Amino acid sequence: MSKQVAVILSGCGVHDGAEIYETTLTLLRLDQLGLGYRCFAPDIAQHHVIDHRSGEEVEGETRNVLSESARLARGDIQALDELDADEFDAVILPGGFGAAKNLSSFALDGAEMRVLDELKETLQGFHEARKPIGLMCISPVMVPKLLGTGIAVTIGQDPGVSGAISAMGGLHRSCGVEDIVVDFEHRVVTTPAYMLATRISEAATGIFKLVDRVDELMDL
Amino acid sequence: MSKQVAVILSGCGVHDGAEIYETTLTLLRLDQLGLGYRCFAPDIAQHHVIDHRSGEEVEGETRNVLSESARLARGDIQALDELDADEFDAVILPGGFGAAKNLSSFALDGAEMRVLDELKETLQGFHEARKPIGLMCISPVMVPKLLGTGIAVTIGQDPGVSGAISAMGGLHRSCGVEDIVVDFEHRVVTTPAYMLATRISEAATGIFKLVDRVDELMDL
Repeated sequence: MSKQVAVILSGCGVHDGAEIYETTLTLLRLDQLGLGYRCFAPDIAQHHVIDHRSGEEVEGETRNVLSESARLARGDIQALDELDADEFDAVILPGGFGAAKNLSSFALDGAEMRVLDELKETLQGFHEARKPIGLMCISPVMVPKLLGTGIAVTIGQDPGVSGAISAMGGLHRSCGVEDIVVDFEHRVVTTPAYMLATRISEAATGIFKLVDRVDELMDL
Repeated sequence: MSKQVAVILSGCGVHDGAEIYETTLTLLRLDQLGLGYRCFAPDIAQHHVIDHRSGEEVEGETRNVLSESARLARGDIQALDELDADEFDAVILPGGFGAAKNLSSFALDGAEMRVLDELKETLQGFHEARKPIGLMCISPVMVPKLLGTGIAVTIGQDPGVSGAISAMGGLHRSCGVEDIVVDFEHRVVTTPAYMLATRISEAATGIFKLVDRVDELMDL
């Protein structure tokens, strides 16, 4: 039985959901390493819908985070409240504005943000069992609220976001797009991905390193 | 100036648009090879919207192919009618049901299908200039209608689809998921991708070979 990794999504598309390339590259690397995976997303309404062509909000349209995330999983997905940390060896959260709008309210509330209760409960299950947790792009901003203070993470170099992490009691480390930050004590691995990437191959390098390190930490 | 490749999308999601992993893996490989790329999609309504969680059609909902494809391009996309073959060195079409529902009517009409006029016109521009054309998954079924008869392609091994290709005057070659079929005379490269793939790493192997071969053909 191969090791199993849960991947938590937040929609489908950088501006209102999970970042598509980050998700795909995560799944590719997991599969290349021979790791099993399963996708999950909350069964809630999206904060809003953005037309990715114009960048504008689509008035009056609603979409469901689980149904849209299912596009990224080719239909093979479960509701987040069905995710049992006991059944998995690690968990990874790609980024995209969905992490800051659907999984949390960071895009609206900054350091005063709230996180989804079912996400917090699930992540704490992994954390208490000392199972590795990978987060990329904007998702690491949720770490102080999800897992507690004093955990080293990166979102790249953005002063506003890193300042918010500090304000919530987190530890921010600057990091290049092709690198990762590892908090060995807390088993948390983060990479900037599309907080910094200007090319998909750059994002791939950092994301592959993150998945490789999560894999190694499962054995430690 | 690096060589430039046009990538033509048909929405965002395997059941009603472009296949997400196929598109992402194509863009990753293009970028890893140092090739420039630009995404295009027709500015038309989707044939329909499928809830990818349930697999059911969503009654009464409409989405635009260009706006949904923009999710796959992080917003950086143009309408298909702005694609000028003179400005690109090759063109690649990922698969997904969007190719059989939005770019053509294959999913409804089989061998009696029609293809989008603007797609046919664009592809013929590449073909007449002897620029390589890559197609994956279900997209090769459009080749007889887009480029003419007698061109060797693969969609893997599906007897119904390969029979339809033959009925339209195409030449179907059976092919494994990690391999490609190349018609050197017509400069057409095809791979089965998610017509056969059961794992994302299998699809990646075939798609990377397709992009590599398209790159080589640009120099011949």
